[in-house]
Order: sequence, then C-alpha cells, then structure tokens
Amino acid sequence: MPVQMSWSGWGDPAKATPLPESVTTLLRELLGVQPRDESPVALSDIAPPEPRLDQDVLAALGKIAEVRADAEERVRHTGGKSTPDLLRIRRGDTSQTPDAVVLPATHEDVLGVLELATAHGFAVVPFGGGTSVVGGLAPEAPAFVALDLRRLDELLEVDEVSRTATLQVGLRGPRAEELLGERGYTIGHFPQSFEWASIGGFAAARSSGQSSAGYGRFDELVVGMTVATPSGTLTLGRAQKSAAGPDLRQLVLGSEGAFGVITSLTVRIRPLPEVRLYEGWRFPDFASGAAALRRLSQDGPMPTVLRLSDETETMVGLARTETIGEGDSGCLAIVGYEGQAGEVAVRRDRTHAVLSSLGGTALGAGPGESWEHGRFGAPYLRDSLLDVGAFVETLETTTFWSNIPVLYEAVKAALPGHLVMCHISHVYASSASLYFTIVSGRIGRDADWDEAKTAVNEAIIAAGGSISHHHGVGTEHRAAYAEEIGPLGVEVLRAVKRSLDPAGILNPGILVP
Amino acid sequence: MPVQMSWSGWGDPAKATPLPESVTTLLRELLGVQPRDESPVALSDIAPPEPRLDQDVLAALGKIAEVRADAEERVRHTGGKSTPDLLRIRRGDTSQTPDAVVLPATHEDVLGVLELATAHGFAVVPFGGGTSVVGGLAPEAPAFVALDLRRLDELLEVDEVSRTATLQVGLRGPRAEELLGERGYTIGHFPQSFEWASIGGFAAARSSGQSSAGYGRFDELVVGMTVATPSGTLTLGRAQKSAAGPDLRQLVLGSEGAFGVITSLTVRIRPLPEVRLYEGWRFPDFASGAAALRRLSQDGPMPTVLRLSDETETMVGLARTETIGEGDSGCLAIVGYEGQAGEVAVRRDRTHAVLSSLGGTALGAGPGESWEHGRFGAPYLRDSLLDVGAFVETLETTTFWSNIPVLYEAVKAALPGHLVMCHISHVYASSASLYFTIVSGRIGRDADWDEAKTAVNEAIIAAGGSISHHHGVGTEHRAAYAEEIGPLGVEVLRAVKRSLDPAGILNPGILVP
Repeated sequence: MPVQMSWSGWGDPAKATPLPESVTTLLRELLGVQPRDESPVALSDIAPPEPRLDQDVLAALGKIAEVRADAEERVRHTGGKSTPDLLRIRRGDTSQTPDAVVLPATHEDVLGVLELATAHGFAVVPFGGGTSVVGGLAPEAPAFVALDLRRLDELLEVDEVSRTATLQVGLRGPRAEELLGERGYTIGHFPQSFEWASIGGFAAARSSGQSSAGYGRFDELVVGMTVATPSGTLTLGRAQKSAAGPDLRQLVLGSEGAFGVITSLTVRIRPLPEVRLYEGWRFPDFASGAAALRRLSQDGPMPTVLRLSDETETMVGLARTETIGEGDSGCLAIVGYEGQAGEVAVRRDRTHAVLSSLGGTALGAGPGESWEHGRFGAPYLRDSLLDVGAFVETLETTTFWSNIPVLYEAVKAALPGHLVMCHISHVYASSASLYFTIVSGRIGRDADWDEAKTAVNEAIIAAGGSISHHHGVGTEHRAAYAEEIGPLGVEVLRAVKRSLDPAGILNPGILVP
Repeated sequence: MPVQMSWSGWGDPAKATPLPESVTTLLRELLGVQPRDESPVALSDIAPPEPRLDQDVLAALGKIAEVRADAEERVRHTGGKSTPDLLRIRRGDTSQTPDAVVLPATHEDVLGVLELATAHGFAVVPFGGGTSVVGGLAPEAPAFVALDLRRLDELLEVDEVSRTATLQVGLRGPRAEELLGERGYTIGHFPQSFEWASIGGFAAARSSGQSSAGYGRFDELVVGMTVATPSGTLTLGRAQKSAAGPDLRQLVLGSEGAFGVITSLTVRIRPLPEVRLYEGWRFPDFASGAAALRRLSQDGPMPTVLRLSDETETMVGLARTETIGEGDSGCLAIVGYEGQAGEVAVRRDRTHAVLSSLGGTALGAGPGESWEHGRFGAPYLRDSLLDVGAFVETLETTTFWSNIPVLYEAVKAALPGHLVMCHISHVYASSASLYFTIVSGRIGRDADWDEAKTAVNEAIIAAGGSISHHHGVGTEHRAAYAEEIGPLGVEVLRAVKRSLDPAGILNPGILVP
C-alpha cells in the first residue's frame, strides 16, 4: 500500500524530522521565538459533522464509483497544505471537511458524478494530491464531495516519434516519472510538491517546476487534454501549436477545477538526461545576481535549473535545507544542467564564462548537491517549525524584469517585523518570479496571517505584479486576482463557467468570485 | 504618401511582374493550361451599392473618427486576399464591400465606434493590413463598417531591461521593424504577409513567421495587450508567464476580431542580429528530410529558419520564386541562422553535422539567398497566374510528427487532378505544419474552388489535423473548426463572445458559427 500523505502536515510522516539545533538558535536569536509545544490534536479525536448529503444521494453516488464517508477519510481530504490549512486541521477544525470522498475510475465515472451533482445541487472538488497552498480545496457550498482522482493512474500512450505521452491525471509525480523512465523518458517537471502532487494538479494550477529553465513550465509541456464538464466532454489539442481560433487548452490550464475535471493529458516528453549537474555560485548582492540571471535568460546559454537567493535567504542558508543555519554572505545561486554529456559540458563552459564576467564566483558542486538533496524537503521543515510555535509560510509573484526591484521592495515593506527571505525561482526572457518565505514569532494563528496576507496581496497588485507565478488563485488570491484581470476579465471567466458548469457545482468560490 | 495595397491583387502594383517563360511552359506542359487574358475590370467601373447606414449614423460616426464612404475606399476595403476574394473583386463583385470605412486614432475612438455600433446594430470589421486569406473580412451582417486601424501607428514604449516593446496595432510589419531597428531591436516576425500585414493582425490571427524556429510564433512573442470591446476595456499581461488563472491573453490571440479590437500590444524584442545566413540542403526524399527537421526540433541545435519542400515543390522550384521552373530532384530544405557572429558559427557547424549525418547534402548559400530575395514574393506570382487564367491557392494545416505522413497523403488525395506542392513550413518539438500550394487548370472560378476546399477541409479534420496552423479560421474554415473543437468548444466561444460583445456586432459569422 502506498504511503499516505500526513493529514496534519506534509508528506510521509516517517520522514518528519525534529528541528535542527541551528534553526532553534536562529528562531531564538533572530525572532525571539521561545519554542513551545504546539503539536496537533490526535486524528482519532477529530469528529467531522454528519455528512450533509442524503442517503439516497450517497447511494446513487455509490453506483457510479466507490464512496468513502468515514471520519478519517474525510479528514484526510480536508483543505490543502497552506499554513492556515495546517493550523486549522492541527487544532481539529473541520469547517472545510468534505461530506464524502468519491473515487472514480474512468472518465465516464467523472461525467456521471458531475451529472448527479448537477441534478442534486451538491458541489464537487477535484482532488489530486491535495497540495494546494492557496485554499483551492475550500469551496463555498452547503455540501460537497472530494473527487479523489487517484484511480485514474495509467500511462495510456507513448508516442516516441512526436515525443509525447498521454497520462491519466491521478498519477502522482514520482509514479509518472517511473512509468516514463522505464521507456527512457522524463517529463522534466519537478516542483517542490513533486513527490505528492498529481499530473492533473500540475495542469489545473499551472505548476512550474524547479527545472523550468530547461524543460519549461507545465502549461508549456501540455499539448492535449480530455476534460469532463457538467456540459459534456472537451477534447483539445491536435498539434503543439495551431491558429485554429483561441487556444482553448489555455482556458482549462489554470482553471483550478472550476470549469471541468481534466481526466487525461498529453504532454511533451524528453529522453532521460545522461548527466545531472548542479553547482553553486556566489554574487556580491541580489541586484548583480539578478542581472546575471537576466542575461542568461535573454541571451543564453540557458541552464536547466536557475535560482538566486537574496542576502537574507543566503544568510539563513535556506536554499539548502540540509545545512540550514549555515549560511553565508552575498547571494547564493544554484545553477544546474541536465542533458547529454557533451552538450552539458559545452553549455556549462559557456555559462561559467557569462557568470564569471558578471561578478559571480563559482562555488563548485557542494552547494548544488546540498540543494539537490533537500529540494523537496522544505515543507517538512515547516511542520517542525509549527510544532514549536513558530509561523512559517511562503508566497510568490512575478513581473517583468524592469519591475523586479520595485515588486521585491513592495512585498518586504508589506511584511514588517517578520523574517522575509526571497529567491528568484523561475526566469523568462522578459520576466521572472519572486518566491518569499516568511518566518515569524509574531503570528500565532491563521487569523493573524489573514491580515498580513491581505496586505501583501494588495501590495503585489499595486506594484504591478501578478498575484501568482505558480501557486494559483484558489480562495486566498481571489480578490487580488479580480483586481489583476479587472471586472471584464472576471465576467469572461464567469461566462465560461456558466457554459461548462451551468449549475455552478464545480469548486464554487475557487478562482471566480 | 505610403504605397497602397493593390485593390485587385497583392501588394505594390509597381512590383507586379509578368509571368516568367519557365512558368508559362510549366502551365502548358504540366497542367494543360492554355494561357488566356483574365485581367480584372477597371477600378473606376466598380460601383458598390448605396451605403446601408443611415445618414445620422454616418454623422454620429464622423464625430468619433474620420469616415470615408466613397466607392474607391470601400472597394479597397473589400474582402481579403484569398484567391476567391481576388476572383470576386477582379470581376467587380461588391457583395463583401463595407458600407463605410472608419479610421479611429485612439483606443477611446475605437470604444466609441463599438458603442455606436452596439446602439445602432451595424457590424464592425477590424481592418489591419486586409491580408486575410480565409474570408476573415466577410461578416454576415446587413450593414457593416471596416474599422481601419492604420492611424494607431505609434511605438509607445521600449523596455530595454525586460526586452519588450509596446506598439499600437495599426503599424505594418516594415514600419514596426524600422522604429525598433532605430533602437537596435527586432521583433523577428516575418510572415509572407510581412510587408502589408499589421501588428494587430499578427496577434488576432495567431500569425507565424518564416523565422519562427528561431524567434517563435507571434502568439509566443506577445506578453501584454489592451483590447477595446463593446463591454469595455481588457488590459492583460503582468508578466510573460503567470499562474493567476487561465491565460486570458490566449483567448484574445486568435479571436480574429470577433471578441474585441486589440489596440496595443506588448511584445518581446531582441537585439538586431549581427549575421543573417541562409543555406540550401538537399535530401533524397521528403521522409528523410522531415526526419532531419524533426531531429533538430527535438534535440537541437535549432536554426532560425527551417523549411523543407516536398519532391513536387522542389521539382517546380517554388521555394525560390526568382528561379521558379528551374527546380531539381530530391527535396530542398532552406536552413537559416540569425544572431551574433560567434554564436551563429557554432550553431551552424553543429547543424551541419546533424543534417549531414541524416542524409542531407549541403548546397551552400545559393539556394538560401535565392529564397531570401523571393521570400515575400509568391503572392505577386499568383496575380500573374490569375491574369492568364490559371488557378492558384494555398492552404495549411498542422499535426503531431507521427501523423505528418497520414495528413500529407490525405490532403493530396483530396485534391485529385491538380498540381499539389507542399513544404514543411514551421516545426516544433512535437508537431509541424504542412503548407500546400495548389495550381490548377481545371478550376476556373471561385465557386469551383469552394467544392474542392470543402473536400480538403474535411480530409484534414478526418486525418486528425488542425484546420489551420497560421492562416486562421475566418469563414472558410468555420465549419471544419467547429468539428475540430466540438460543440462544447463552440459553446464556450459563444459564451465568451456574448460577454464581450452582447449585441454580436464584431465580425459576425467569423470564427464562431
């Protein structure tokens, strides 16, 4: 039986690690946090309210797919993995708990569930890995089911000539890579949530992976899709690019389950790389490091992995969770290369020349390997911090390169009194993303954070940033998102939703106000 | 005063050239065409019907922007540049002639015209270069005005840090490149229509240029936009990539003026290349040449220009309009490189090694230079062919690489008895486009072609192709497009149109049935 995601924290409970002494020292000295025990309640002590679905509806659902309505299963499908989500479930709050969990096994099962939901007026929340950090699993509905897609777990086709694969959406990242790896291929998509998130979630939330500089964002890898909606099935994608009207795939990507349930995806695949090489570089400051990343993004060569910590994140050592607290001066960049050996050697030499000429100092493979070992580990560290009463959360945004300094300062200014660390996490020719980690001794509960979060959302919009580079909109960014696209943009999304989901049963309140 | 586009053919009338003797011979020997005079009627002999707009409406329009309702101006805004369009206007058919031509000078002017049209129920056809070849300027409306955007012709901003430029949409290709060239930059977008088409048209029709392998399609170059719609203004694009919901820019790109009028665009720019180098390669057959192009598209290196003619097109010599009729055996590929000298040299060496290893024979710069000199010239040749009574038209499609052979054969089989030439015009990692040129002695009038076109559209859809890679949908591809995206896809587009254009005054009948 596969390992289940922790119900009260991140990932595999067996991998939970106590807080390193270096971090405890940091908390005390930098933030004045006096560690105290804030462990969660026991799972067996949580009693969700009676399901708000009639027995005949549950029976009808059970004829379409397996239905689970026991307390544990419902708690395990409660909310996502934002810090407020965790704080709520750790104290036994079941206000976001689904009334039942439904496990369809086919596209037709999904259509059947959507039809029943439309007829009976209950809401449906598509559930992949359950890793949303923006309130994407908290619908505004009197009754709702979590539509757990884990049984849609097949690799349907590999087209070696076109270098594409068609996968069902319930496959989690590692299993998808395992199935493709057996054939010699990779998708190359490794977001921090990789170990738990699903293929469908990557698409629905416009995920971006740590190797996006080399492999592209997930929305750039998707070339085709099948989508079950309350109004029927959409089948899209007859070529990677076409001029046959607007690209309707782009209306489904980023729709966060509010327009339909993606049941299969055709994505680009690449041969498994012969070589994976990650190295560290030091820049004297964030501005010079950012200029170097921009130069590579605009004129090449392009590494596969490219990220740059600001001075604070570098000092804390957050880029390498294994050695956190053993930070350094200046700004640390991680620069990685994947591909065939000869090609990587040439690309690395050219990159070294550019980075050296722009003020970078090569630190060798040490920091790169350390980053690699800890690349999916940061969420475990958050759990340990929450256990001792410290608050930690992340947020991210993106803007054009010329506006990066303004946006960076605006976010920091909106979070006074907290430890705010930042790195440039994804780069493009004309823009880049900023990823912030906030640690605080002054925020005790999710309600305190709500206020700070609203302030920082408003600061991002006012500074010209987009409300999310890869976390998505959910409920936490909904108000800011409406400002970003304006009232007419919101009206367009509502019109699309009305046409695909006339009864409004899909993820109500997510994305579209 | 700038040169005006020919009303009855393509481009600058001064550049019209009589048919080369080699082509006349080809026509006679290959197609049995006996050249005869089929010159157009005189412009002064064409008398469009009285405008179907009331005088008070014309007066109200005149308060917003300049209005022209004289016969010549109306004829010059009639239809696009497909062969059926030309055959109609050459015989004086004014069934697609607008009732007036309106020339707004600002975004607010455009909003004003759309408001007036909504109130009075006349249709509005956004008109950039007027180069549609898919019936994109032939609305189904009792009365309509052509909204000529030529006065929106400013370069608004260059952001050298982000490498973007914001341009008004009425700028034609050469003027946009001239304005950016003065600053040392290029957009790098050079479709065959480059000399006449407008920036707005490139976006509205999802244009793809001859250098798309190096610079990307136009929709990949757009990072921001302002759109005037009957429901108000949409302002989109806070970064090149974002996860803030679906990418609404992609709903405007390819919307062919049916959802709104784009008034300005922010696009990626690049430094002007130091070097431009185009070369010829010969492959023994189309399959081996296609395999070589696919290899470059998937594993690199990627040239800036990459196209491959099939055996027939190579034999006729169509890739080089200057030397047409002097074709050769095998399949001719044009492979071009643009960029900084050192980088181009390295990329060219690596490309040579790949192409040689896959059966290619280097032909040197001769065929490349010949292609370059004639790269925008093919439409002039069509005019000369029409003058002597031969029929010539182009069409294009796209599919995944594994399906290219099936689609290629399906299109040829749908056009029996005609000379059908093809080249791979654009390549991606997972797919490619096929561009067909049809010359026929058996098709005399546009009505004959309608039947053949319907057959070939159906063949493309049945073979799994997309109905257009870069020409768009217009009216000629509308039925096939509806099949491609399915009834639910059509319903989504209708919902978007209702929200942005409730009265249905924008390009009615274009794109959405």
